[in-house]
Amino acid sequence: VDMCDSDFGNGKMKEPSEAGRACTSWYEQLVQPCLLELLGSALFIFIGCMSVIENVPDMGLLQPALAHGLALSLIISTLGNISGGHFNPAVSLAAMLSGGLTLMMLLPYWICQLLGGLLGAALAKVVSPEERFWNATGAAFVTVQKQGQVMGALVAEIILTMLTLAVGLGTTTNEKTTFSPTPFCVGLSVTMAILAGGAVSGACMNPARAFGPAVMANYWGFHWIYWLGPLLASLLVGLLFRFVTGDGKTHLILKGQ
Amino acid sequence: VDMCDSDFGNGKMKEPSEAGRACTSWYEQLVQPCLLELLGSALFIFIGCMSVIENVPDMGLLQPALAHGLALSLIISTLGNISGGHFNPAVSLAAMLSGGLTLMMLLPYWICQLLGGLLGAALAKVVSPEERFWNATGAAFVTVQKQGQVMGALVAEIILTMLTLAVGLGTTTNEKTTFSPTPFCVGLSVTMAILAGGAVSGACMNPARAFGPAVMANYWGFHWIYWLGPLLASLLVGLLFRFVTGDGKTHLILKGQ
Amino acid sequence: VDMCDSDFGNGKMKEPSEAGRACTSWYEQLVQPCLLELLGSALFIFIGCMSVIENVPDMGLLQPALAHGLALSLIISTLGNISGGHFNPAVSLAAMLSGGLTLMMLLPYWICQLLGGLLGAALAKVVSPEERFWNATGAAFVTVQKQGQVMGALVAEIILTMLTLAVGLGTTTNEKTTFSPTPFCVGLSVTMAILAGGAVSGACMNPARAFGPAVMANYWGFHWIYWLGPLLASLLVGLLFRFVTGDGKTHLILKGQ
Amino acid sequence: VDMCDSDFGNGKMKEPSEAGRACTSWYEQLVQPCLLELLGSALFIFIGCMSVIENVPDMGLLQPALAHGLALSLIISTLGNISGGHFNPAVSLAAMLSGGLTLMMLLPYWICQLLGGLLGAALAKVVSPEERFWNATGAAFVTVQKQGQVMGALVAEIILTMLTLAVGLGTTTNEKTTFSPTPFCVGLSVTMAILAGGAVSGACMNPARAFGPAVMANYWGFHWIYWLGPLLASLLVGLLFRFVTGDGKTHLILKGQ
Repeated sequence: VDMCDSDFGNGKMKEPSEAGRACTSWYEQLVQPCLLELLGSALFIFIGCMSVIENVPDMGLLQPALAHGLALSLIISTLGNISGGHFNPAVSLAAMLSGGLTLMMLLPYWICQLLGGLLGAALAKVVSPEERFWNATGAAFVTVQKQGQVMGALVAEIILTMLTLAVGLGTTTNEKTTFSPTPFCVGLSVTMAILAGGAVSGACMNPARAFGPAVMANYWGFHWIYWLGPLLASLLVGLLFRFVTGDGKTHLILKGQ
Repeated sequence: VDMCDSDFGNGKMKEPSEAGRACTSWYEQLVQPCLLELLGSALFIFIGCMSVIENVPDMGLLQPALAHGLALSLIISTLGNISGGHFNPAVSLAAMLSGGLTLMMLLPYWICQLLGGLLGAALAKVVSPEERFWNATGAAFVTVQKQGQVMGALVAEIILTMLTLAVGLGTTTNEKTTFSPTPFCVGLSVTMAILAGGAVSGACMNPARAFGPAVMANYWGFHWIYWLGPLLASLLVGLLFRFVTGDGKTHLILKGQ
Repeated sequence: VDMCDSDFGNGKMKEPSEAGRACTSWYEQLVQPCLLELLGSALFIFIGCMSVIENVPDMGLLQPALAHGLALSLIISTLGNISGGHFNPAVSLAAMLSGGLTLMMLLPYWICQLLGGLLGAALAKVVSPEERFWNATGAAFVTVQKQGQVMGALVAEIILTMLTLAVGLGTTTNEKTTFSPTPFCVGLSVTMAILAGGAVSGACMNPARAFGPAVMANYWGFHWIYWLGPLLASLLVGLLFRFVTGDGKTHLILKGQ
Repeated sequence: VDMCDSDFGNGKMKEPSEAGRACTSWYEQLVQPCLLELLGSALFIFIGCMSVIENVPDMGLLQPALAHGLALSLIISTLGNISGGHFNPAVSLAAMLSGGLTLMMLLPYWICQLLGGLLGAALAKVVSPEERFWNATGAAFVTVQKQGQVMGALVAEIILTMLTLAVGLGTTTNEKTTFSPTPFCVGLSVTMAILAGGAVSGACMNPARAFGPAVMANYWGFHWIYWLGPLLASLLVGLLFRFVTGDGKTHLILKGQ
């Protein structure tokens, strides 16, 4: 099993000189990536929940949008090269489908990401004044309140997640469109998505981000949207990349050469 | 017909090693760029319309400014190297005039960009709560309401579009002023333009961005401003680049060597 | 007279291969840089004035801070490599003192920058609705209203201009601290300065930015602050760089080797 | 004593060609770094305090978050390569623990950073209108008012400081995760932390940032939080880097090769 190519976040920065020592131990291949996915998800979701819990209502979505985006950018910059910097089950699924993660690592990654989400949401609860925590329902997604909002929210989650995944895959997997500040592309795509879709669906795009706060606030209304939407988007993006815009390695039909 | 130099977005990042395989098939030369222009325009205009539909009035223009700018930055980063990353008829016209796109591709690009605008605005309508959609007139440009505003709005559209086009051309076509994070330069120039001109003309700068929402909300008041202004700006920038600041290839008069 | 080293903005990106043709004609050496300083100053000050004229009062200083910063970043990215990208008499003075501009070019640059300021402010007046233009006094600096504010405002202008100049010089002139996205460093230093000092002195830091709108609105209260402060800062930064932190070429005393 | 490797800020950009002259004099090794730490801390804390003193209450934390983050980014870009760009006793401690600063330089750095904090806060007091200065208690940290907030604030300071330090160390010390725009990573991590934790603990993360304004406003309520939190975080991050994620030089246990 070759896990040395499992970089999703900023794998393009790996220098050839390290190639010799990158695949050396069980610890570096399995335990370290999983620990860092757990740690990174916890930190990302901690920052994300905090920014929602403290947001001033009149400010619209700028504070949570920037906080989520910068947190993801910086955590991928710091930890991404070791674990791939997914911190999101939907990203791991898309990475696996497009050949950036081995199937065997998918379940461990998902478990670590969900545990990280729990840990981050728990930390946000510990740190926040109780009144403010409950005013924000612990940063759980409460945007969808009526059945009439479900379709719009689901479609928004799918499109926004697809766009975010496309940015991630398009700036890393596909050699034709590589652009070096990838961690910031990925992070800022979350900023963009929250600015666009925050009031329609919450712009979650990440089951781990939905799961942790839902447990902490014990709030489960329309929770399935934040699993179905992002994971369906992963499937669609994985297929899209393989069939339409992929490079030599993943481009299966209509290949130019 | 050599379409291999039709990169406008981030063509400078193309590595020599791919040169051999870049011009291989009809699919990669014609269908893929057009599909990606349609897809990219749809995504850009979807995000743009959403950020306008959901904006909190007290927040001024920050949310739409950042959402449009990040969307364009990231979509050019992801898809720009294949189609050039125009997503705007005015950009395609300027690229054609300054030698970055063949004349034959101009009409297909325009059609795809307008269809993409329609698709993006339609998606925004599907996803948004109806009340909020109509409050914002579907993100159509309603800034100009009186005849007295027309001249100011038209001049603003021309100057802002020229500045945006100059950033795009200046950071890609002209080898003297190449600066690598071009996609973000182009995207952030839209942010800048909206922060500066959003309240005067709407800072559209893109007929496709005006067209899609106008169809969806069936709102056509002063719609011609958003065609005349940007396309006039393309003409002026195209001429300016050829005669004043171009490099060896496009600099026609007063050349230094 | 060797004007080929007059790059201040992003001179470090000049590639050796162009060195041979960079110093070829009177047009490219003198007329083109001056024209671009005029054009760049006009565009920068147009965007800056527009963002002030349209600002929503409750929003604090974010909109003008981002608009000024992005405008300067992007205009330096686009035009900076030809003229040096000063667009500010204080920057030209500091560049001259630290060896980045010949003395002979200082006066032409100043004249072009002030004319550009006039042009930019005039364009902003043409484009803006009259009521909004006068509400904002045409984006002239009206922060200082009483004699008691003068000292604070003057000290703020000096410190903020020094910091901005230090970022510009520190990221270009001094080889030890070169950092490639210089245009954005310079532009964002203006954003930072407005966020910090906008309410104390207006964070002008640029006589051309003060001059143009002052003419257009015929408002001259405490106008001298915006000449004395920035130019004094240029003198201090020029001296500081020569004596304390400069590299081999400009570091005059206490040199390490 | 080899102080030539004491770069924390953007040491990776040092080019080999300068290596020969970098370790030449007592002045460049000791006096210059300390002076620049003092100057940089003063400028950073001046900008930071100004942005807090002038903040519009309704704006939430965006203005101080961006001002602190940009100030740190730009000051590290400009001065960081000479002194390492710490400007924070907690950063110097973490740099020392992870091998980026000699023990002998720790105390001089701390003294310079605290003096810089005093100087920056004093300048902010001089420049600000008196009424506004006292309304903001001179930008001292007044978030924690009751004993019940202490634990949350302390935990928040520790986690946020750890995250900021991890970004700084992770993008410089560890060759596996190097990402070049480090100064902006470090600066934007402060933006992120203020957006997330500003309302819980103030997101100080820097004893020098707390100390200067506390002296100027003579406000010492719960001041110890801003020493204990950040320094404890330095210890934890130093240990974490040595034992878990470090590269060949600092990775002590469970090493892969």
